[in-house]
Amino acid sequence: MSFRLTNYIPALDWGSSYTRETLSNDLVAAVIVTIMLIPQSLAYALLAGLPPEAGIYASIAPIILYAIFGSSRALAVGPVAVVSLMTAAAIGQIAESGTMGYAIAALTLAFLSGAILLVMGVFRLGFLANFLSHPVIAGFITASGILIAASQLKHLLGIPAHGHTLFQVISSLAQNLGSVNVITLALGASATGFLFWVRKGLKPRLRALGLSPKLADVGTKAGPVAAVVVTTLAVWGFGLEAQGVAVVGMVPQSLPPLTMPSFSPDLLRQLFIPALLISIIGFVESISVAQTLAAKKRQRINPDQELIGLGAANIGASLTGGYPVTGGFSRSVVNFDAGAETPAAGAFTAVGLAIAAVALTPLVYYLPKATLAATIIVAVLSLVDFSILRKTWGYSRADFFAVAATIVLTLGFGVETGVSAGVILSIALHLYKTSRPHVAEVGLVPGTQHFRNILRHDVETDDSVLTLRVDESLYFVNARFLEDLILDRTGDGSPVKHVILMCSAINEIDYSALESLEAINLQLTEMGIGLHMSEVKGPVMDRLKGSHFLRDLNGQIFQAQFDAWRALTLNRGAEVDRVERIS
Amino acid sequence: MSFRLTNYIPALDWGSSYTRETLSNDLVAAVIVTIMLIPQSLAYALLAGLPPEAGIYASIAPIILYAIFGSSRALAVGPVAVVSLMTAAAIGQIAESGTMGYAIAALTLAFLSGAILLVMGVFRLGFLANFLSHPVIAGFITASGILIAASQLKHLLGIPAHGHTLFQVISSLAQNLGSVNVITLALGASATGFLFWVRKGLKPRLRALGLSPKLADVGTKAGPVAAVVVTTLAVWGFGLEAQGVAVVGMVPQSLPPLTMPSFSPDLLRQLFIPALLISIIGFVESISVAQTLAAKKRQRINPDQELIGLGAANIGASLTGGYPVTGGFSRSVVNFDAGAETPAAGAFTAVGLAIAAVALTPLVYYLPKATLAATIIVAVLSLVDFSILRKTWGYSRADFFAVAATIVLTLGFGVETGVSAGVILSIALHLYKTSRPHVAEVGLVPGTQHFRNILRHDVETDDSVLTLRVDESLYFVNARFLEDLILDRTGDGSPVKHVILMCSAINEIDYSALESLEAINLQLTEMGIGLHMSEVKGPVMDRLKGSHFLRDLNGQIFQAQFDAWRALTLNRGAEVDRVERIS
Repeated sequence: MSFRLTNYIPALDWGSSYTRETLSNDLVAAVIVTIMLIPQSLAYALLAGLPPEAGIYASIAPIILYAIFGSSRALAVGPVAVVSLMTAAAIGQIAESGTMGYAIAALTLAFLSGAILLVMGVFRLGFLANFLSHPVIAGFITASGILIAASQLKHLLGIPAHGHTLFQVISSLAQNLGSVNVITLALGASATGFLFWVRKGLKPRLRALGLSPKLADVGTKAGPVAAVVVTTLAVWGFGLEAQGVAVVGMVPQSLPPLTMPSFSPDLLRQLFIPALLISIIGFVESISVAQTLAAKKRQRINPDQELIGLGAANIGASLTGGYPVTGGFSRSVVNFDAGAETPAAGAFTAVGLAIAAVALTPLVYYLPKATLAATIIVAVLSLVDFSILRKTWGYSRADFFAVAATIVLTLGFGVETGVSAGVILSIALHLYKTSRPHVAEVGLVPGTQHFRNILRHDVETDDSVLTLRVDESLYFVNARFLEDLILDRTGDGSPVKHVILMCSAINEIDYSALESLEAINLQLTEMGIGLHMSEVKGPVMDRLKGSHFLRDLNGQIFQAQFDAWRALTLNRGAEVDRVERIS
Repeated sequence: MSFRLTNYIPALDWGSSYTRETLSNDLVAAVIVTIMLIPQSLAYALLAGLPPEAGIYASIAPIILYAIFGSSRALAVGPVAVVSLMTAAAIGQIAESGTMGYAIAALTLAFLSGAILLVMGVFRLGFLANFLSHPVIAGFITASGILIAASQLKHLLGIPAHGHTLFQVISSLAQNLGSVNVITLALGASATGFLFWVRKGLKPRLRALGLSPKLADVGTKAGPVAAVVVTTLAVWGFGLEAQGVAVVGMVPQSLPPLTMPSFSPDLLRQLFIPALLISIIGFVESISVAQTLAAKKRQRINPDQELIGLGAANIGASLTGGYPVTGGFSRSVVNFDAGAETPAAGAFTAVGLAIAAVALTPLVYYLPKATLAATIIVAVLSLVDFSILRKTWGYSRADFFAVAATIVLTLGFGVETGVSAGVILSIALHLYKTSRPHVAEVGLVPGTQHFRNILRHDVETDDSVLTLRVDESLYFVNARFLEDLILDRTGDGSPVKHVILMCSAINEIDYSALESLEAINLQLTEMGIGLHMSEVKGPVMDRLKGSHFLRDLNGQIFQAQFDAWRALTLNRGAEVDRVERIS
């Protein structure tokens, strides 16, 4: 591929064909997203243990940088629930929430995460995200949703609580249950109930009132804003702050500040693994949203470019008072549904949020934290979906086991342990499965040239010819398995004179397996049994030709299994000197 | 399998058919092995940083326990070079060599290693050893041989040195090079030269003198004993100890003592990973020796029983003043060649060593450590074999890379890092390869029902039908790869109307891949393109039948690729309602 700047800065591509109509669509989307993002950003900052303005700041520079470097046209970048929780878990071990050290650790985490994403993008390591299997992601998101909801209960109840596992949070809540603030609880419970009703009941109601589906949708999305306005007015009007209702309080009225992450080697070392996990989880969340939306418009996403876009966004967050960000599901869908056509919509959203940061922050002084907690709880509970357990149970026990372990470990030991264990377990289970591959003894389907499993089909067999089809690549993990298998089948008293390995499903033979094949060949030779191979794939055959094995093999290599069968059963002992390459 | 005690205690099996002739063969072998083991045991204890008698003790109880529980008839268990080096590396970080703490840590390491092996045996986890690929083992043994030889140079030079990496050892030697003891060096160099000559030159010489091959072999094996006797007499006769030649010194004249490992949780935690690595390396070394010897007599080895045998041997070592043991290559080969027929030969060897421990230990007082170092150096240098680099380079770059990294990291960072990195790297490289599988577009070989790669063969194709043969199981690591691939091939302006996935090499479709297939099906449906599958294997089809996918699939499942081709090219649009299971 030749070097083109638009390959690296997609903005140059869509920017060159920007029209007045695109502009108006993007502007409308930006207004809608801005209104939705104000409470959401404050709430996620709260979840991350940061001052509320950090959430707004984390939505401004990152969204602009992603607009320049990202490849998705509709993705909206900023704070999201799971990454906010992971941020709190990572930094909570290092500094006390509310301190300067905590805020600097958050900047550093964003910087590290940005650097990791950029490096992955430059070296095209996007495939690393594939090591998170779909069930592990689903399990992790579900468990995180529960953890997040549990962590927000303290704001709903007006009591202190802490911890990064479900047990810690619940027991911490239970200890303080005596000092519940009733007014806070009333406010929080009403907000939560209202928001659930908005999700479930409002849209059909609005449709019944004759609103168009699109307007009904906008009405539904405005629910959190209504809850924010009403509860803020209630606290202000009835002086509830004096009754112990925790409010957001003073938020600095300013544009995002210029900030510097820390480069202390100790801190960087402590935050590296959390940053890596946040980067990968954030990338996976972001790219699945981006791909879903792109597919609807027949656009394509470039994963490596996405890494660069998200990397730039996170470095931007670290330099402007933010914390780790990624492409969020709800904000991106709203952006897309509101008609955003290019990343410029994101840039306009950033402008809207900057105006809010300067002009509207005094208005949120009396916003109760309980309302923010309610918006978080309602949002994340929609992520909780245990159906993945049922689906994987029916399809594959290994996948079920991986997802169940991910859920249990995330709830029991926190997000980092949970997701790491999920990845390691999926890989281990895959290796375990390939270590004991399915092997079928096959025979000839009468009247055809096809060979099928003798246990599943009525096929012709010959006692002196054993044909085994190994349904797996041969590599170090199962090399000895094959040795044991063949020696078991050709042991004392067996009438077998020829073993044919049918290699149609063998996609690789690594050096360990090659040595095992040599050992098998040697032992069968001593026993007077021929070893043959059929249907060897082109790439595998190319490799074997460079080794001693083909020269040492006591039998032959046949292009087709049928040739092998004919040669070894009909013309026993006759030479068939076709050693051909197949593919 | 029904419960039979002989399944768990193989000694009951061979013991019941023991004859006078077997007895005499076993006795002869035991005498030869005992003579060889005395200097070897002392030398390996030295290498492990333990007092010399620990090597003898580690050969007595373990050999008897293995004789009862092990499944190999010729394996000789005791201290071996690589495990001794790993013991020194593991304990060197915890205690100072020569202290009580060091000896107790060695007992504890043996106990932990024994417990790990027993657990692996009981739960039939022997397959875990397969995670060490052949090239990684070869690289590790070669690098360990170099490390061991380097670590013994200090005894040859009579200067202090320490360290667990090649760089540490060499720089430590270089610092003390000024204080070389010339007499020690003369003794050590002579012994080394003599032993090399025994290996290379003595056997042909003895044959030329008319000795039978067997006797010549025995003469060769007695070389180290001759070196020990001559140099001991020299030190004693010329009073070289006073000249600064380090000798073995006082060795307690006693049977193996009863000892207890430590159960301090801290120590157990520190030693767990080293014990795990020692167990796996020891098991791999032992089982490859056992299998090689068993194959020569058409016997079979039961890997899980071997784990139990080795586990019992190590626990025995921990209770009788020893340190981690395993089945050694040289001692087992000598045992086998000397005619050992049953594990009873091992038990007789143990008796011989017990007699030596009580009666002969005063004789080794003047044995110079330089001689022991010479026997180690000569033994381990025969393990050093860099040809694995050349062989893997020619066959598979991934294997080459894994072995090169294992060698470099073992030399540069020590045995634990080296072998761990080798295992992790082999797995990572395997996963990387399967993440970008070979995919062939196939066409019909004219006049047959076979389909082959269009790039390698002259085949019939049809612009509207794209048949892809994916040469890999579909699972989470490559799920997205397939999605990208198919959408790339069916994008704008493509004439493709049908995509056929030829699944002959797909051995598994996990849940992530199933979701990817569903996404592909959905997108192709939107584009008006049919998705079909052919040659789906029985076990894969069984799974798919339990899922929604088959119901949602917009195309069909064909038993044979030829059926799919005929249906989609000749009778375009015609329904072929064969959705059959194949295997």
